[in-house]
This record gives sequence, C-alpha cells and structure tokens, in this order.
Amino acid sequence: MSTPAGLAPLGKVRIAVDCMGGDHGPAVTLPACKAFLASHPSAELVLVGNRAALAAAQDWPRCEIRHASEVVAMDDSVEVALRKKRDSSMRVAIQALRPGRSDEPGDAAESPLAHACVSAGNTGALMAVARYLLKTVEGIDRPAIATVMPHQNNGYTTVLDLGANVDCTPEHLLQFAIMGSALVAAVEGKPQPRVGLLNIGEEAIKGSETIKRAGELLRAAGDAGELNFHGNVEGNDIFKGTVDIVVCDGFVGNVLLKTSEGLASMLGGFIKQEFTRGPYSLLAALVARPVLERFKRRVDPRRYNGAALLGLRGLVFKSHGGADAFAFEQALARAYDAARNRLLDRVHARIGHSLQAWQSDAAVLPGPVQEKAA
Amino acid sequence: MSTPAGLAPLGKVRIAVDCMGGDHGPAVTLPACKAFLASHPSAELVLVGNRAALAAAQDWPRCEIRHASEVVAMDDSVEVALRKKRDSSMRVAIQALRPGRSDEPGDAAESPLAHACVSAGNTGALMAVARYLLKTVEGIDRPAIATVMPHQNNGYTTVLDLGANVDCTPEHLLQFAIMGSALVAAVEGKPQPRVGLLNIGEEAIKGSETIKRAGELLRAAGDAGELNFHGNVEGNDIFKGTVDIVVCDGFVGNVLLKTSEGLASMLGGFIKQEFTRGPYSLLAALVARPVLERFKRRVDPRRYNGAALLGLRGLVFKSHGGADAFAFEQALARAYDAARNRLLDRVHARIGHSLQAWQSDAAVLPGPVQEKAA
Repeated sequence: MSTPAGLAPLGKVRIAVDCMGGDHGPAVTLPACKAFLASHPSAELVLVGNRAALAAAQDWPRCEIRHASEVVAMDDSVEVALRKKRDSSMRVAIQALRPGRSDEPGDAAESPLAHACVSAGNTGALMAVARYLLKTVEGIDRPAIATVMPHQNNGYTTVLDLGANVDCTPEHLLQFAIMGSALVAAVEGKPQPRVGLLNIGEEAIKGSETIKRAGELLRAAGDAGELNFHGNVEGNDIFKGTVDIVVCDGFVGNVLLKTSEGLASMLGGFIKQEFTRGPYSLLAALVARPVLERFKRRVDPRRYNGAALLGLRGLVFKSHGGADAFAFEQALARAYDAARNRLLDRVHARIGHSLQAWQSDAAVLPGPVQEKAA
Repeated sequence: MSTPAGLAPLGKVRIAVDCMGGDHGPAVTLPACKAFLASHPSAELVLVGNRAALAAAQDWPRCEIRHASEVVAMDDSVEVALRKKRDSSMRVAIQALRPGRSDEPGDAAESPLAHACVSAGNTGALMAVARYLLKTVEGIDRPAIATVMPHQNNGYTTVLDLGANVDCTPEHLLQFAIMGSALVAAVEGKPQPRVGLLNIGEEAIKGSETIKRAGELLRAAGDAGELNFHGNVEGNDIFKGTVDIVVCDGFVGNVLLKTSEGLASMLGGFIKQEFTRGPYSLLAALVARPVLERFKRRVDPRRYNGAALLGLRGLVFKSHGGADAFAFEQALARAYDAARNRLLDRVHARIGHSLQAWQSDAAVLPGPVQEKAA
C-alpha cells in the first residue's frame, strides 16, 4: 500500500464494532473479531453491545467493551433507529468516531475513540444515524455507498453509489468519483485510479441529460488533474476490469448489485443441480470437487464484504446483514486498511483540492448558462 | 399456446428476414432460415438482401427473395440508415410489414407482405427505421425493447425497456407494462402474466418520484383489471422468477442486461480457467464434461435470442448482432410465435381497453392535481 507524502499510514488503528447488528449478532461478530485481532497485531477493537452478550471477549487483549442497552433490528425504520433507540449498539459504535464522543453539540473536541466503525445493521438506519452523528464532509452534498465487485483480471471494480441516493445530479456523480478515487487510493494503494461513468454506450452523446452533463464535469475534472477519468463505461465493463471505479446513481447501482447477486446465485444453483442429477453426475462432482472448490473460492462474495459509507466525517463500513464470521472479518479488514491509509484525510484533501479548483475555474468549466445580474 | 376468444392463431405466418444484417450476414442468416423452415412447416419467409448473396436460397420452398441493394452496417448512424440507405435490406424487410408496401404516404392500403420481420442489424438504426416506416400504435408514446432472461424455475422473465428510452415518465412505464403483458400472453400463452415494477426495495415508498408515481399508475391499472400487477420487485427477482414481466426505464434495463451478460461471461471464463489449470483439472473436466455441457446448454443465451420492438404498427424482432445460425433461428421462432398468436392485435386490444379506461376513469385515478379553469 502506498500513501502520498505527508500521509504516512497510522501506526495503531482502532475500530469500533457494532457487535449486535446483522442477522446473527455476537454469534458471528465475536469470532470474526477474534480472528481479525489474531491477523492484525497492531489493531485494537472497541466491542459495542450488550455487556452480557459480549462476556466471552472480556479478557481479550487489545479489546475494550462498551455497553449499549439497545439493538437496531434489521426491520427497524430509520425513524426508530434515529429517534427511539438512542442507546443502540449501532449508534454508540458510530459515536466512537466523533471528537467529543457525545451527542451534545458544542462539546469540547477531543480525539475520537476509534478510527473506523463496522456494522452489519440495516443500511438505511446505519446511513441515517451516521449522517446525523457525523455530518458530511465540506464540499460533499450527499454520502454514497461504495463496494467492490470482482473482475475477470483477478482484481476488483469499486462501484458507487449503491442506493443511498436515488436521484442524483451531475455534481453528485462528480463527488462520488472523487470519493471513490480516495477510497481506491487508500485501500488498494493505487494513487491514480481510473474512473468510468456508467452509461448505455461508450459514445459521449449517449445517455440522459444528467449523465451527459456528468460526463462533461468528470472530463473537466480529469483535465484539471483532479481525477483520472476514463470516459463512459457499460455494465459489462464492471466485470472486465476496464476501470477501477464505476460511478452511477444509487438507483442504478442498487439494481446492478442485486441483479448480479441474483444471477450469481442462480448460476451457482444450476451448477449444484447439474452435479447432483443422478449417479454419474455425483461421481463427476466427486472427481471435479477440487476444481469446483477453487471456482467457488474465487467467486466467494464473502471475500469482498464491507461497503464504505463515503462522504461522512468518520469512516463507517457496512457488512452484509447475513455475513458469517469469515465475511464479517473481511469487512473489519477493509475498514482497517481504509483507516490505516487515512481514507478520511484523503477524501478531505481531494475534495478540498477540487473545491478550490471549482471556485477558481468556475468561469471556464462547461456548464449551464449562469444567471446574470441585470 | 392459448389465445383468447376472437383471437384464433394465424394459419400461415410470413416473416420478412433482413438477411444482410448482423456481424455475419447470409453466412448465418441463410442456414438459420433453412433450419427454421424445416421445423415450421406452415411458415413462409421473405428473404431480403443482395440477390447474388442469397442465390443459395432461390429454389427453397415457401421462400421468396426480395432484392435490396444496400446494407446498414453495424456502425452506421441512425441518420445514415434513415436518410441515406433507402434501399437497405433492413428497410425493405421492415417495409414488408406495411400495408401499401411503399414509402409514399396515402398509398392504397393492401395487405402487408409479411406478419413480422427479423433483423440482426444495429439496434438504433432498426428502431429508428421501424418507427419511421411503421409509426407507433395509438396510445403508445414510445416503442420499447423487450427481451427474456432465464430464471431459476426453468422459465423466463421478460424485461423492458432495454434501452430505447433513457428518460421515462410514469405513463411510459405503464405503457411498457401493458405491451409486455400482451407479449407474454402471445408468446408464452399466459393470459394474465404478473407484472413487477423494478425498484430498489419492495416497499411502495421506495424509489424516485417517477417510480413511485409509476407504482400508483400500475396499481390503479391492476385494480381496473387492465393488468396483473404484483408490486415492486428488485434486481434479483428477475432470476428468481417472481413475476413474468419486469418493467424499468431503458437506462436501467440496458445496464442490467449488460451487467448480467458481463457477469455470466466472467463466470463462464472462470469455470473454463479452473478446469484447464493443470493435468488433474483437465482429467476432471473430461469426467465432468457431460454435466458441464448440460449446464452450458441450460444457460446458453442463444436459446432466448430475439428481442421484440413493441408499440409499433408491425412486429419487428431484433436478433443479437453476433448471433450464430442457431441463435438467429431462435429469433425467427420468437417472431413466428408472436405473429401466429397475433401479438399486434393483442397490443391494440389491450392498449385500446386501457385508453378507454383512462378516459372514463381520469377523475378517479390517483394523479397530480389537474389544472382547473379559473
């Protein structure tokens, strides 16, 4: 992992874990935390949840337990998570990212308890509580959700937004591109990741007015050296590895993510069905087992569990709700890499640089005609 | 295949084939036509293209050759296809669907030469030429492109629109739902196919304003008996077979189609790589071959080649440009089924019924507040 000058990796990384979230709670999160601590000797954890439920961890090294009396259920509304359950494990874990550590505005700023937080709780609640407690970074209108999908060249494509924003302006898409670039720079160590704008054809003239205008903004930002803009990409480019980052609005991103999950699950089911259809197939399955296992490992979605909530003044990572211990451990590792390589500072730096550029270049950027004073 | 009373299947079906379109032209289309004729004894074909290139077919039974001096290339612009190449095989094939058979407006109406037309030419050009020559059905603002995707219960989900319309109003989405219902009724013999609205959550409150309003329109149409509305669906429902028809705008539809193609292709590539990685894998591949072949056949995209251009006053089917003879034959078969089961009459009947309902129910349909005379 490379970090630019002035952004040396953190020596010690502390992660707050919502141990009660997700479909399985501590039965999954505690074994994941244990394995994570073993493989990350400089990491520290703040385990948040019901003290009794977390008793098994009370003597673990590099671990602190924070009691929280409530749990945000997977089907709790945003309203309930935000207004009713004020002592939820999710909320207390996010709060650990705040300087001052309390809900009270104007509280004295002290160093935050943790550098990142991980929860498998419900996405809507997590985003709402995180946004309420942490606020957005200056220059970012809306936080976005980013995850990775595997591509055919044994790497990953980062896709955002995945559902935080159903209606996006061209400016939002530009902000997603900048935040995604910071994420990939931090987690994958690529200083100038390539950004593609998801469209329905490679030609710049295709797509809706929003997409066309976003293309102009991204191109201008690319020309100004703020990001490495490749141009338009199509859905299949995600799996070809054409670019490092694919930017789209949250409606499209959510559809493509769920479509991909559905297709992969169907194809996996078909393979299983065909290899159990009669005695010869079962024999073939036995012989082919090492090969099939290798294939399965290669496409195992648990390996890239852990979506980043970007644009907040704190690093929040969302694990799949149904994650098992192995999957949850990967989400912890992604949060660790992001915090260690100072993702938050990178987002601040990139967006600050862009804000400056936008202010000074406002006159030359392509754009709708500005209203003029009469 | 069932057809409602008054819509008896056609006895003889005649299909106009753009034999020059696609990546391979007559090398693919002619063998496909030959196989199709053999398996459809009551079908007739009009083979359109350069007479010399189609010489092999000149003595085929139930076949007529129509010379066309030009070919729309895969990278020709809509402008070129529409204005310059006025004697293209694509255009002449579509023209065969028009009563009067000529470009001249006000021409005497006579029975069209063919009931449906199939082309593997470029989609943009095909839609533009078809729209220009055939016009849209009354009550339909915009034609849509519909295709099927396989689902895990060994059936197909019909998805539309796939890219003809990047920005859709709620009314467009309702029209897509009605046309999709007519298509599935005709081709799959399901009189009341279930319609789902693609969204990012099953709850009615999710999604953009357009999607929410479309949900209201579809629900009202369902309540009025115009279609069988299931509610919101998500991307993975396409492969679960939750509904028969998934409705979305052309941007989303195109992204989900290409994402699915890209993912399927990557996974297929991974399977191949793993089964050729060293001597043991090669042996396993040999043993597992019959199973893998069965899997491959099951997910073979050639089997469901042939997208319908819906909403035009003529049945136009689009084959994949890279189709081989087997795939092109499937597109011919889909066009045949649609024509035989009178898809055009069904679209007319359904949309006519809905138009009446909209006019008489305008006051009670949920909708934006109507402007009132002062």
